[in-house]
Amino acid sequence: MRIVAAKKLLKANDLLAAENRAKLAAAGVAAVNILGSPGAGKTTLLEALFAALAHRARPAVIEGDIAGALDAERIARLGVPVVQINTDGACHLDAGMIAAALADLDLQAVDLLFIENVGNLVCTAGFDLGEQMRAVVLSTVEGDDKAVKYPAIFQGSDALVMTKCDLLGHTNFDPARVAADYRRLAPDGRVFEVCATTGDGIPAVAAWLLGSEGSGRERTET
Amino acid sequence: MRIVAAKKLLKANDLLAAENRAKLAAAGVAAVNILGSPGAGKTTLLEALFAALAHRARPAVIEGDIAGALDAERIARLGVPVVQINTDGACHLDAGMIAAALADLDLQAVDLLFIENVGNLVCTAGFDLGEQMRAVVLSTVEGDDKAVKYPAIFQGSDALVMTKCDLLGHTNFDPARVAADYRRLAPDGRVFEVCATTGDGIPAVAAWLLGSEGSGRERTET
Repeated sequence: MRIVAAKKLLKANDLLAAENRAKLAAAGVAAVNILGSPGAGKTTLLEALFAALAHRARPAVIEGDIAGALDAERIARLGVPVVQINTDGACHLDAGMIAAALADLDLQAVDLLFIENVGNLVCTAGFDLGEQMRAVVLSTVEGDDKAVKYPAIFQGSDALVMTKCDLLGHTNFDPARVAADYRRLAPDGRVFEVCATTGDGIPAVAAWLLGSEGSGRERTET
Repeated sequence: MRIVAAKKLLKANDLLAAENRAKLAAAGVAAVNILGSPGAGKTTLLEALFAALAHRARPAVIEGDIAGALDAERIARLGVPVVQINTDGACHLDAGMIAAALADLDLQAVDLLFIENVGNLVCTAGFDLGEQMRAVVLSTVEGDDKAVKYPAIFQGSDALVMTKCDLLGHTNFDPARVAADYRRLAPDGRVFEVCATTGDGIPAVAAWLLGSEGSGRERTET
């Protein structure tokens, strides 16, 4: 009974996600769903990417948080259009929330839309938001066993961005182990290592985003 | 409709949690629910606590993970009784899972039962497992805005354990900010700062656990 309800819910989400995807494609906007644990460094990664993308693509952000608008305030200070979604307790964004947020953005003035999901390595995985790309952010201080322990979120992704690489010397995190685990789950996924606070590795992520921009690739999972 | 279903589900969980609590109390076992993000350092904290508790309390562990048994293998290597729960995708433990796991433990040989929840700062908050104590683990590399962004999990807790304090000099994490935010959410909660790999701060957490042991305090939220 509970399973049937969950499937119905996901089906409704997929219909809304398809509408979002069509709306974004019509406006020439490439959207990337940014997933990761609380504190993985998602917002700091966005801040670094804005600098790398300057004069090459016009960014905008949809921020998903349980409560508050701390992240949206950080983005707004950089002059980037941002809409904050408060999920009011819900552990992930869904396509309906994104549809509402899209109505508050001038899509004609946007090339790349970053959707920063709620910090959660589990629940965010199952919900298509209508994005073209899905990137998982994993910090080097979270431990290198995460792809094995939380496989679903990595499976559906197009890229893995390992953040806080400046702290590698202070932990027992092995990026090669994570990359190998990730490739088993997402054979075509790109792997990046960055330090967003220094900018190391950020240009490669920006180039990937720009290369994917406007490609209009449909997500294949249903 | 969805809200009603969720409430029913939580009510069933509370009944099972009450049964777990009675069973644990009858056996003289104090149980602590350990919550935190993926990679917060929950398992490493347990490893450090076993050493500090040696000859003073007999520990056992219930490990909750989406997939795999990596954490249970770490615990078992230390000779501590451990039961692994695989939630098979579910984002939190519930009281029914704990009831099943308790049947696999010899409670007469246990003083302190650690229940390591799924790494998730959102969904784990709402489910009483029948524990006496609830501790949230937050690492100093997750950012010091987490109590504001994920308030529910801190609100229901008895202690906050800030881990990876050896990395404090390498981040902009302000423990005082987190402690102040935490006290607004949990005025009676204890605050600890530890480095589990060196053992710094661990004796204070062990003393808190030993002091609470057998106190039989009921959780008051419903």
